[in-house]
Parts: sequence; structure tokens; C-alpha cells
Amino acid sequence: MQQIYFFSEGRRDMRQLLGGKGANLAEMTRLGLPVPQGFTISTVACHEYEKNENQLPETLRQEITQAMQRLETLTDKKFNAVETPLLVSVRSGAAISMPGMMDTILNLGLNEQTVRGLARQTNNERFAWDCYRRLLQMFGNVVYGIPEQVFDSVLTDYKKQHQYQSDLDLTTADLQKIAADFKALYQETGHGEFPESPQKQLELAVAAVFKSWQNPRAQVYRRLHHIDNNIGTAVNVQTMVFGNSGANSGTGVAFTRDPVSGQRKIFGEFLANAQGEDVVSGVRTPEGLQGLAKMAPAAYQQFLTAANQLEQHYADMQDVEFTLEHGKLYLLQTRDGKRTPKAAVRIAVDQVKEGLIDRQTALLRVNPEQISDLLHPEFAPEVLAAQTPLTKGLPASPGAAAGKIYFTANRAKDAHDAGEKVILVRQDTSPEDIVGMAASEAIVTSRGGMTSHAAVVARGMGKCGVVGCENLVVDEKQHQVTIKGTVYPEGSELSVDGASGQLFPGILPATQASQDDNLQTLLNWAQETGEVGVAANADTPADFAQALKFGAQGIGLTRTEHMFFKEDRLMKMRRLIIAATATDRAEPLAELQKLQTEDFYQIYRLAQGKTVTIRLLDPPLHEFLPHDAAEITEVAEALAIPESKLQQRIAVLKEANPMLGHRGCRLAVTYPDIYEMQVTAIIDAALRIKQEGIPVKPHIMLPLIDTLPELQWLRARLVKKINALLAASNTPLHYQIGIMVEMPRACMVADQLAEAADFFSFGTNDLTQLTFGYSRDDIGSFLPTYLEQGILKADPFKSLDVDGVGAFMKMAVDKGRSQQRSLPIGVCGEIGGDPASINYFASIGIDYVSVSPFRVPGAILASAQAAVRRQYQFQKSAVQSR
Amino acid sequence: MQQIYFFSEGRRDMRQLLGGKGANLAEMTRLGLPVPQGFTISTVACHEYEKNENQLPETLRQEITQAMQRLETLTDKKFNAVETPLLVSVRSGAAISMPGMMDTILNLGLNEQTVRGLARQTNNERFAWDCYRRLLQMFGNVVYGIPEQVFDSVLTDYKKQHQYQSDLDLTTADLQKIAADFKALYQETGHGEFPESPQKQLELAVAAVFKSWQNPRAQVYRRLHHIDNNIGTAVNVQTMVFGNSGANSGTGVAFTRDPVSGQRKIFGEFLANAQGEDVVSGVRTPEGLQGLAKMAPAAYQQFLTAANQLEQHYADMQDVEFTLEHGKLYLLQTRDGKRTPKAAVRIAVDQVKEGLIDRQTALLRVNPEQISDLLHPEFAPEVLAAQTPLTKGLPASPGAAAGKIYFTANRAKDAHDAGEKVILVRQDTSPEDIVGMAASEAIVTSRGGMTSHAAVVARGMGKCGVVGCENLVVDEKQHQVTIKGTVYPEGSELSVDGASGQLFPGILPATQASQDDNLQTLLNWAQETGEVGVAANADTPADFAQALKFGAQGIGLTRTEHMFFKEDRLMKMRRLIIAATATDRAEPLAELQKLQTEDFYQIYRLAQGKTVTIRLLDPPLHEFLPHDAAEITEVAEALAIPESKLQQRIAVLKEANPMLGHRGCRLAVTYPDIYEMQVTAIIDAALRIKQEGIPVKPHIMLPLIDTLPELQWLRARLVKKINALLAASNTPLHYQIGIMVEMPRACMVADQLAEAADFFSFGTNDLTQLTFGYSRDDIGSFLPTYLEQGILKADPFKSLDVDGVGAFMKMAVDKGRSQQRSLPIGVCGEIGGDPASINYFASIGIDYVSVSPFRVPGAILASAQAAVRRQYQFQKSAVQSR
Repeated sequence: MQQIYFFSEGRRDMRQLLGGKGANLAEMTRLGLPVPQGFTISTVACHEYEKNENQLPETLRQEITQAMQRLETLTDKKFNAVETPLLVSVRSGAAISMPGMMDTILNLGLNEQTVRGLARQTNNERFAWDCYRRLLQMFGNVVYGIPEQVFDSVLTDYKKQHQYQSDLDLTTADLQKIAADFKALYQETGHGEFPESPQKQLELAVAAVFKSWQNPRAQVYRRLHHIDNNIGTAVNVQTMVFGNSGANSGTGVAFTRDPVSGQRKIFGEFLANAQGEDVVSGVRTPEGLQGLAKMAPAAYQQFLTAANQLEQHYADMQDVEFTLEHGKLYLLQTRDGKRTPKAAVRIAVDQVKEGLIDRQTALLRVNPEQISDLLHPEFAPEVLAAQTPLTKGLPASPGAAAGKIYFTANRAKDAHDAGEKVILVRQDTSPEDIVGMAASEAIVTSRGGMTSHAAVVARGMGKCGVVGCENLVVDEKQHQVTIKGTVYPEGSELSVDGASGQLFPGILPATQASQDDNLQTLLNWAQETGEVGVAANADTPADFAQALKFGAQGIGLTRTEHMFFKEDRLMKMRRLIIAATATDRAEPLAELQKLQTEDFYQIYRLAQGKTVTIRLLDPPLHEFLPHDAAEITEVAEALAIPESKLQQRIAVLKEANPMLGHRGCRLAVTYPDIYEMQVTAIIDAALRIKQEGIPVKPHIMLPLIDTLPELQWLRARLVKKINALLAASNTPLHYQIGIMVEMPRACMVADQLAEAADFFSFGTNDLTQLTFGYSRDDIGSFLPTYLEQGILKADPFKSLDVDGVGAFMKMAVDKGRSQQRSLPIGVCGEIGGDPASINYFASIGIDYVSVSPFRVPGAILASAQAAVRRQYQFQKSAVQSR
Repeated sequence: MQQIYFFSEGRRDMRQLLGGKGANLAEMTRLGLPVPQGFTISTVACHEYEKNENQLPETLRQEITQAMQRLETLTDKKFNAVETPLLVSVRSGAAISMPGMMDTILNLGLNEQTVRGLARQTNNERFAWDCYRRLLQMFGNVVYGIPEQVFDSVLTDYKKQHQYQSDLDLTTADLQKIAADFKALYQETGHGEFPESPQKQLELAVAAVFKSWQNPRAQVYRRLHHIDNNIGTAVNVQTMVFGNSGANSGTGVAFTRDPVSGQRKIFGEFLANAQGEDVVSGVRTPEGLQGLAKMAPAAYQQFLTAANQLEQHYADMQDVEFTLEHGKLYLLQTRDGKRTPKAAVRIAVDQVKEGLIDRQTALLRVNPEQISDLLHPEFAPEVLAAQTPLTKGLPASPGAAAGKIYFTANRAKDAHDAGEKVILVRQDTSPEDIVGMAASEAIVTSRGGMTSHAAVVARGMGKCGVVGCENLVVDEKQHQVTIKGTVYPEGSELSVDGASGQLFPGILPATQASQDDNLQTLLNWAQETGEVGVAANADTPADFAQALKFGAQGIGLTRTEHMFFKEDRLMKMRRLIIAATATDRAEPLAELQKLQTEDFYQIYRLAQGKTVTIRLLDPPLHEFLPHDAAEITEVAEALAIPESKLQQRIAVLKEANPMLGHRGCRLAVTYPDIYEMQVTAIIDAALRIKQEGIPVKPHIMLPLIDTLPELQWLRARLVKKINALLAASNTPLHYQIGIMVEMPRACMVADQLAEAADFFSFGTNDLTQLTFGYSRDDIGSFLPTYLEQGILKADPFKSLDVDGVGAFMKMAVDKGRSQQRSLPIGVCGEIGGDPASINYFASIGIDYVSVSPFRVPGAILASAQAAVRRQYQFQKSAVQSR
């Protein structure tokens, strides 16, 4: 089988075989663009190398020799000749770009003889020796693993000894001496002589590239990015061109559009008389493309034309590397350009308008996970570059915020009320802290993972949040936090970068997110395309209004318990919990009912007939009771009960594993009046709206359902209540009663449950917790190790575990619909916003996901992408089956 | 369709149609035994009644009329005749005995006319009016629901008014007056006239019996006992015979064997000149059967013969009711007699020896759940009868114990060491309390359910245990407990009945369980029959020795963590947990390894080649650290570290939901040296035993496995360690590495896991917790309501939830064996000892269960019963398919 392809033999769609770089070099060649001649040693050769116990097989060595002979003919140069020596670069290139993972060797082919030939040919002895010195350095590093610093220190010492300011002070003689020193380094580090034979150099370089595919760094990278270990890398061997050949030479890189703003104008850098690595090393500051325009106007025009051609051809913004050698332009690489989320959106929309791509393609061009970055304020990169972070936690919720730190919800609230910008810093948060969180610009915790209470609430509120910041020692009593030995008392100034998870001292300026019309356009297209609908998790009219602005199709989850944490209600809730009898409960229930009715009324008004799914009380009652002594005293006073009674109640309600305890519908079975109150509020508010002539669709959702008898028992009770209300009001009203599917048992008996449920909504957080037996609050102690060791590929609370949790969901969907063919099924865990997960949800027939308001746009886009991919797949399989 | 069957038309196998009582009356009639003539209105009629909106259908009324005419002919008496009036009893009788649920009416057919006829006929006016009075009373109660107390108070008032001592003082005139008063009661309570027409009486009585099938009490009973609501009840109409006809009359009941000891001798009671209800009411104390023998020797002989015939015929001990009327013997009922567990065992074994039944039948005759009662000491019924319990909790572990109460493990241990009998009373227990629990006679907790730590450990240790005793207010600091307002300080004397869950003041005498040869015989048969093997959960050589004595086939679960709670080890474990680096951990690990090696060595010695399954460390590390301030100070001192450091470590290890936290194999991934230490101990000890020429089968079990990569990662590490040990010792050794299947995810991916597991063992406790999302420690707050409301049929931790947990197990078995056809699969949760659950385990192909030593005999029997039932089923379906 052919293992080597000349650039003239390849095409862009041969990425798997030639790697991304090789395929693009071939494509540019095919387009007639000025690419230095060369060939690609394919990924097949990489496999053969590995199969051959990490030795180049004889057949491959022969093929390489033949390819070099052909290259000699094509270039009219000679490998290993003193006259017109053929020099090549050797670069790795896998099918999937892995920046910085593999290495490059330039000037390969030089040795003690050919260096002199190069000097003669270029009439520049110093240039030739500098090339040779660079080869020795790169070759030693890439092939033998001699650390770069070793070469650097030789160079530095030499310059110091001769009191040189820069590399440019080095003379030919200096460079010759240094080359000799470098060669001595090979000996000293036990690698023997530098191979003078260019053929040998090439073989060693190719083997080194293949070998580097297996280096631990590369393996970790692939594991982290879920890249298959078996795809292998290709090697590109290309005739050298020299941007450092003197006047009328140079090197540069350009993006066909502005990678930051997305504006349609070429954007590049150029460095006269330089090689690519000079740009990277930062020794000299590059100028804009006008440098090229001034130096070689024709080449500049040629480049603009080529860049434009490449963008049109690839139908995407390109990142193009080029070299000018004695006034002649060469293109060395093209690839899809990296861009900011903002630019990605603009480019995609612009290109549709320009007719370059269709809407489907545009939808695939933006990473849904980055969309929320566009909605939040952020610190500008230049602001961050000037700062040293104090420490770093998990980036739980994007955004940028700065303010004074406070350690309790109450003091945070007070400071906020006094007009301060507040950062709430806690060990972790609990529902009691909600008011303080709402009053803060950002929430920082020392504990917890990406789905801890603090993280979920921060995302829900669209607040900046950093959690699991292990270097924080929070002392809530002393009102101070210690970070790496330094104490920061209450009121200290702190800046929080939710995008990176970093904390900075002092107040940094943040840029506000502005309305982005391109994003709106893209999301409109996405809305039209997506098969999986997107609703919002919204607990307040404010949240819901935000979500509607972002395109939510309704509410998939209103957590009624959050409503009870509002200051005026918490005490009523507590009175309810303390009550010993149904009679004692009646008064607080009636008061809460009035408030809840108003909550729902406001939400229905906003919904204007969109579905509003309301989950009845879910958390265990003890979450509503105070925890520390001072608070207990305070609450006991407020409730006018003996402190001992309150303490006793707290003790009775305490649970060993609250996540698995007396909560959700279990509360409703033991205290039916609470759910009855909530249902009354839901229906009363709906009737009021209906009577105002506004359509309304209340969906009542029961959490934690395990068994059909449990569901039937509850449903019967609630329906009875509702029927009484409807009969009294004489207003027809459609409502639904559905369930959270979040217990593994519910998945197993979903066919039974579908007999009595109008809809299903997966609670993926609880389902994941129970499927794995992982408490999301406690996962932090072992999850990092699990990820590091590759035991888990991702945090299952962030990206769906398809084999486990996903299989349970599929089972539940299939069983549920076997009983009720068009049963509506949603997902209301945070995972609903994860693009990979949405893909899976689409494949198993989920109707909608429900996510926090700031994740709505990302979910809409991800849903559209899933639909486009499925469509492509369908077309592909339709083609294949013909 | 025929709805009425005369006794002469039925047979014993017509239970479904005639009910148990009716079928047995028919069978006795068929055997030629003296049964008063009568007929049974079948369960079909009951359904017709219900279908006919709770009215007797006309066809049935006609059939009843015809049946009464036939009965008149047979008895030569006349219904509604003054001369020779025909009187009948009306009794309910369902296919399944529901004692006390349905009601009886005697003397039906009496009215103002026939009562006079009866008086003339019997020449006993007082007797006739007493019969009439009783009819009015029973009829009013059963048919109209007039409370018995209403009739009783009329009677009592009358007697008080006339200063009568007893019913016997009532004269005919008195009884006539009372009958009139009773009739007035019908009017007063709005039920109009007492129906004088016997036909009307009969129809109303039959309808009342049918109706009573649906009364709430009966429905609850059926729900609690899992009896199908639809089977319905039959009604038996039988000619009255009168044991209260004067001299040479009487009534009695007899068991064909001693129902307490099981001894083969007739055991009965007789009351001269009395009706059955007099025996029940307890007004007069019955004498033994010698009373009958003296009164009517021929009838006595006839009865002995009949009783023996019935036992032979039914091939089981019978409970026979009889009446003697003017010297003539009548049999009124026979049924399988209730008996104590001890008697059940003896009777079953004796009857096999007598050739009456085969071994299979004998195995089915004993309730496996009651077997453990035979192994524990108990309070004699007469001892308990004389006491009033202080309070009652859940009977977590059987047995009887008395001693002085202590509130902390340490003080309990000290008192025990000082020679006291100790009862440990705590709010709840944790693994730290193990030493104190081991030193106590009984464990009592105020919190927790049947599978709480205290309950599980108590059962495991074979100690008496009462948990969830909500009336206890335990103050561990003040060393006292308050029970219903009374304070009991440390050292107070308490008696604990593990069988009933009751607590008594003072020291009650307990009887020790003795060796029971009959039980041994029965268990030997069971061992030969059972398909599901029975192993033991045993953490110490003592436990294991006990289990072996009870017939365990090996160890299915050794919880290594319990070994670390021994006093000398706990501190080493703590040192290990406090250690900051692997180096600091090395020393305590080495010490623990030495101790564990000895543990395993002792257990292997006992096992003599039987399988020993050892579960590696399972609980979270914080369980090993102290909790209260005093202990923390103490431990910090012992470990020679600052208290703050210990507190910090405790804080770091604290978890929101420890059950779902950093435990099991997750610990092994983050701290691999702990499992490596344990595996080294397991293998070293095995090699030592092997070298002594004793066979050894170590099975290493990994808890909490979720994913294949996790299992592979761990297995690779442990196998590497083991291979090094085996290579060093040069001794061949077979070992296995298997997994606990206890996470729902593990069930879902069991096919994957079977690639790398040598065996599966279901951890049904964790699996049930995660399937339902129930914490077994917190279930107490809602489970009682769930059971009461019929939402759950049973506590899923006590009896397998077949639809949910069972379905997960079946899925895991099927998937696991799809990968590895003969994969050994066990169950090592406490549920393994539940008979109904074992039945299911047998049906899905579970190889063995592993239970605490005292549950081993019950499990062996249950397993045998499952096999016998499956065999019968197989035979039945083989017959049907012919």
C-alpha cells in the first residue's frame, strides 16, 4: 500500500490519511497556489511503524528514498549535495489539530558539507551557519529529547562571554563555534555523533515524529480531548524556503477575517527577514500586513487573492502561514482559523449573508458552550494579562465581577443594601444563602463541584461563580478568608473571573455584554432547526423574563422551594415545619398559599400561554431550618417558641443522607396539605389569568416518584383538590400532572408510571447521583483523580454518561412510550445544556430540555446542531443505502 | 351456575369456591364424620352480589330458599316452625383464613314464635330465650353494625339494677325483658323492626357477610397480608347444635398435637354445658379433654378417632372444634393448627418419620423467618404476660436480654469488663460503637430502621436489638434516657425483648435456646434440597464459627472495615487517615497489614477450603475518626498531633451524603496503598495456610464498582501486587477477584463488568437505596406512612422489591452471563435471608445468598422451600402440558 503522497497527489478530504496539515498542503497545491514542493508520509506509515516495534519498516525507508529522489527532480536540487543542496522541513500533522503537541525540524539536510554549499548558494555564510545551528538545536531536541534549555544555555553563555546583546551580534565564526559546541552536546548527553547523512537525519526525524505520537503529553492531551489513540499522525516533508534570506524576504501569518471581532477584513502579521520561529520566539515584534505590502506590493496582492480564494474554497475563515523568499511568495499552511465566540457568531452569520455557506453550516460553526460567554460581562484579556491570580477554583458560572468580600448571606445582603458591590465567599452554600447570593455580584466557595448548590444557583441566577476553590480557608465566624497564608478580612476587595475560575486582588474593570444582533440571527435560525425544544429553569418572574429574552419556549422547571427562601416567606415556612398538628399548619399554609398564588400569577402573565411546569416542594424540610446557634436563637424568638423545641425539631429532621431522605413526593405523602396548598395556588392563579382572557398552561410536576401506587395516591388526592376548585370557579382549564423521572426505579417501571403521568421530565442530577452512587456535593474528593486516571472521561454531572445514565433514560423513554405512545418527555437537569448530551437526547426522542436562563441560547444552538448532524447522517446513510 | 353446595357435595380441594371452612366441612362430611347438616353459599355468589350492586340476586334468593327446604327435609325440622324449628348458624369463610375479620350469627331462625317452640322442644324456656337474646345481639351487630357495647351496656345495666353477679342469674323473664329491650334498640338506632321472618333473617345475614368482605378492616388486613381482593368469601349455613343444652352437653376445641412443644399427643379444652362463644368470652375457665372423657367416654373415644383420622387425612396437625349435644358428638370445624416455631419443626420432622408426609412437604411446613427465634434466648410468654412494657421499638434482632443501661460504647465496655451485664442505649450507633456493642447483651436505639447500623450489626453479632424506639430521649452527655417522662440514669436495669421490640423495667429471666435435634434434621434435609447456596456474612473467626455451626457453606462477605474498629487497630487506622503523605502512611499500613494477615489466617483455618469472600475497605474514612469534642482531644493526644490538625482533617473528610461519597473502590483509586495492603494480607495469609497443607479459596471483592475502566484499573493494580507475592513465594494459589454489584449503573453495564470480574455479588442494601433513592438510615420518617397507605407493600430493605430492585438484579444477571456464561453470582445483603426474596433469587439464577450467622438456618430452609416450590410448579406444568 502506498505510504507516501506528494502534495500534488492529495486532496483536502484525505485528512485521515494525510493529517490536516498534509491534506491542506495538497489542496493548496491542487488549487495552483505557490506551495513549496513536498510530500506527506501517511498515518498508515505511522501504524506500520508502531506495528514494527517502533522501527521504520524497510519498505517505508525505500519509499522515503524514492520520494526524496523525486523531490530532487522536482526542485532541481540535491539532497546531500554541496551544490544546490535540498533542505527540507519535517513536521507532524494529525487528522485532528493538536497544537503544540508535536514538533518541527527545519533545515534538515544540512551537515558540515552542505552548510558550505548553502553559504555559497545564498552568498551568505552567516545565514547558512545560523540555519545549521538551528537544525542542530531542533534535531537534538526533537529526535534525542535533549532539553531546549541545554542548547539555550550554551548560546546564552556564549553571548555573555562575548558581551553580545542579541543573536544578531553573533558572527559566522561564533555560529561555527556554537555549532561545534552543540555537536559536542550530543556526545556529552550520550547520543553519539550528529548524523551527517541527510538520509539518516530524515529517517530519524520521521521516526521521532511517529514516536512523539505516543509521548505521555500527547496521550494526556488526546484523553482530555477524547481523541482516539489509534488515528496516528502523518509527517510532512517539504522543501525549505527561507524568509530570513535577507532583503525582500520575510514571514507572516494572516487570518482572512478578524479573529476577535469577526469583521470581514484580512488581519495579519509580518516580520521582515525572518523565519517562522522568530515570530513565535517574540524576539522581534511583527508589524501588520502593510509591511508585506510595502516590501513587495505584487506579492501582497497575490497573497490577498490567495487568502480570499482559500476562504471561498474552504468556506470558512482561514489562518494562513506564508513566507516571502527573495520577493517570491510561498504558502506554508492553511487551516480553519481559531476565533473568539463573538467572532465565530459574526463570521457564521456574515458568511450566510454572503452566500458562502448555508444556515445549517453556520449553525455548526459556533460552539454552543461558548455562547453564554457572550451574555456575561468579562475581563478583557489585556486586563487579565497584567494580573497574577491569587488562586483558582472551578469556573462554575461565567461572568466577571469585582467587589468587597462577605462571608455570610446576611452581611452580604446588608452590604448590598448599603450600596456596596458584594462578593459572597463561603465554604459552601445552602438554600438559606439564596438571599445573600442574590445580593452578590459573584459567589465563591472553597468546596463543591460544578453541580454543587453554589454552582447551580449561580448559573441559575446568571451570576459569576467560582467553586471548589481549595486554597481558600474560609473562617465564617472570624469573617475572614486565608489564601495561601494571607488573611483577607471582610470588606477586602476581590475580582472574580467566572470564565477561568481565577480570583484576583483588588477591583478589575469588567466589560459589559452588549446586545449582539448576529447572535440573535443565529439563534433564530437555530430555533427553526432544532428538534429538541428548549425551555427554562426559572423560579422567579425575573429569571423567566430573562429566559424568554434568550428564546426559551416556556418553563420546564420552576422550583417552588426557592420561592420559600425569600425573606418574608422563610419564617412562614419555618412556622409550618414547627407546627405539630394540621390545625397549627393551617395558618402558615394559608399565608404561603396566598404568596404562591401571586408568584404563579406573575409567571403565567409572562408566559402568555407558554407551558409553565411547576415542580412541587422537593427538598427535605430541614433545609428551611436554621443551622447555627445564633440563628436558632433568633428564629426561636421570631417564632415565639422555646429554643429547645426548635432544636428538637431540627434534631428530629436531621438526616444521615438528606439526598436520599424525606423529600420530594415523600413529603407529600406524610404532609399532604403542603402539596395541596401548592396545587391550589397553581390552579387559583391559572383561573385568575384565564378569567383575564390570557391563555395558560400549568403543568404540575411531582418529584422523586418511585412507584405507580405512590403516583396514583398523590394524583388522586391532587385531582380531587383541583376538581373541587374547577367546579367552584366554573372555568374550564387544561392542566397536566407529570413526574420527574430521577430515581433509577422510575426508569425501570416507566411503563407503569406512564399509566398515570401526563409527562415525564428527567432530573438528570438526581438520576446521575443514584446511577453512580455519587453525591454531587462530595464528588470533589475523588473525581479529579478519576478524570486524571482516565477512569471517567468526563464529569457525569456536566456531560451525560451515555452508557449508564443515558441507557437508563433510553429505557425509560422506550418503556414510557410503550404505554403512552406520544408521552411528552423532557430533561430538566443542568446537563440539558450540554451539547454532546443534547445530541444523545435527540437520538432517544427527548422532546425538550430545560436549562437555566443563561444556558438557553447555548441549548437552542446545540439542539439545532444535533438536528443538522442527524440530517447529515440521514443523508449519508440514504446515499450509502442507494 | 350452581351457587350453593351442600356439605355432601363438596371436597377439600374446592377451597376457592367454598372457602376454607366450607371445604373442610364438606370433606369431614365426605369422610363420614358427624357434621351438622348444612350448605355453603359459594364465593361465586359473593361476586354476583357485588356485581348486583350489593343486593342478593333473585336467582340466589331462590337457590337459598330451595337449599333451606332441602335442609328441612334432611334434618326433619322446619324453618319458621314453632314445632321442631330449624335453627342455623351463618358463618363466613374465605379461601384464605382471615381470623377475626368476618362475623358469625348463631341461632338464626328464632323469632317470637319459634323461640317458644324451641323452649317446648328443649323443655328449657330459659335456654330458648337466652338463644334468642344472643341472636338479637349478634344479628344487630353483624347485620346492622350496632356496636356490641350498646347491647352489652343494656345487659350490664340490667344486671346492676337487679344486683345480679353474672349472666347465670338472669331468669327467663329477665331474658324476655332484655330481648324486648334489644329489639327496641333496633328501633332507636334507626333499623326498624327486627325481621321476624327467618327467611328474611337469612338473606340479610348472607348479604351482611358478603358486605363485610369489603369493610375497611378486612381490606386493610388483605392489603397487609397480600391477599387478593377479588377472591371473595363464601357463607356457611349450618344446622345449630347446642353444647349448652344442659347435662351431657358441652363444647371444645382440640389440637391433634401439642401446639407449643409439638409433642404427639392430643391437646384440647372442653367446657361443659356451653356454646363456643362462652369459651371465647372467658367467663368460664375450660378444663382439659378429660372433662369430655368423664362426661361421655364413648363420645370422647369417637372424637379421638376422628381427630386422628383428620390428621392422617390432612397429613398435618389439625385444630378441631366440636360440640356435644345430649351426648352426641358433632364436629364443627377442622383446620391446620397454628403452632410455635419449635412445634412446627418437631411436628414436620416427626411426621416424616411417621411416614405421614415426605421431606419436601416437611420443608414447606416451617416458616423460615421464625427459625432464628429458635436460636436465640427468649422471655417465656408467662413472664411477659405479667409485665407492662415501658415502650416499644422495631424488633431489629431477636433474643432476650437484661442488664444495666449505658450510653456510650466506652462506658458499656468498661462496665462489661467489670463483670456487668450491659444494655447499650444510644440515639443511633456508628462503627465506632462496635466495641461497646460487642460488650453488650442488647442494643437499643431511639433512631433508625430495620437496616440501620445498629440493627445490622446486632443481627450480625446475634445480639438482641431494638431500634427506632421513638419514645426514648437519649441524653448521652448526661448519661440518662427519658422514657415517657421518667428519667433512667446510667446503670438502671432494663430488659429488652428483641422478638417484640418491647422494653421492660428491671431484670426479667430469659430462657436459653437449647440444641434442637429436630431443627438439625430439618436443616440437613434443607441443605440437600436447596438450589441457592447459603454462605455467611462473618467478620470475625467467632462469627464464622457460629455460621459454620449453623450450616454456612463459606463466607460470602467479610467486611474488613469492622476489623479496623477493634480497639488496638482503630488508632492505627486513624494514624493512617491523618497521614499527609504515602511515606507517613507506610508505617500504620504495615502494622495493619500484619494484623489483617492474622485475621484472614484464622478465618481460612476455620474455612478449611470453603470459599472466603473478603470485601476490601468500604466505608468513608471519616467513619474512623472521632466525632465529639472530648474524643477529638483524646485522639489528638494519642496521635501526638495538634487538635486543630485533627479537626481540620475531620472537616475535610466530612460529607453531605456519606452514602454517596468517597468510599469503596473510590478510596482505592485515590489511596491505592490501602487496598494493596489488604490484598497483600489476604494473599500472604492464604499462602501461609496453603503451606500448612490446608486448602484455601480467597475471593477478593471490590465494592461500589460503577464502570469497567474503574474495575480494570483496580484489578490491574491488585493483580500486579498479587503476582509479585506469588512469584516470591513460589506457591501456586487460586484466587478470584469479583465485584459487588450495588450501583444501578453496574447493573446496566453488567455485561461490560463481567469482562473483568470473576464473580458478582449483589449488595442489595446499597442497590435498594439507590434504586429507590432511600437512605436506609432516614427511611423511618416516611416508611410507616407508605406501608400504612399501601403505597409500599413491604419495607424494601426487608423484602425484595421485585419490580424495581429485582428487575435490576435480573438485568445484571442476564447481562453478566451474556458475557460470561457461568459467572458465579451471589447476594450479600441482609435481604438474602428473606424467604420471598430467596424465591425470586432462585428464579433468576442466583447461585448463593450470604447472610448473618443467625439467619443462616432460615436462609437454608427458605432456599429449600424455593426449590421444592419450583419442583412442584415444574411437575404441575409438566402435567398440564401433557
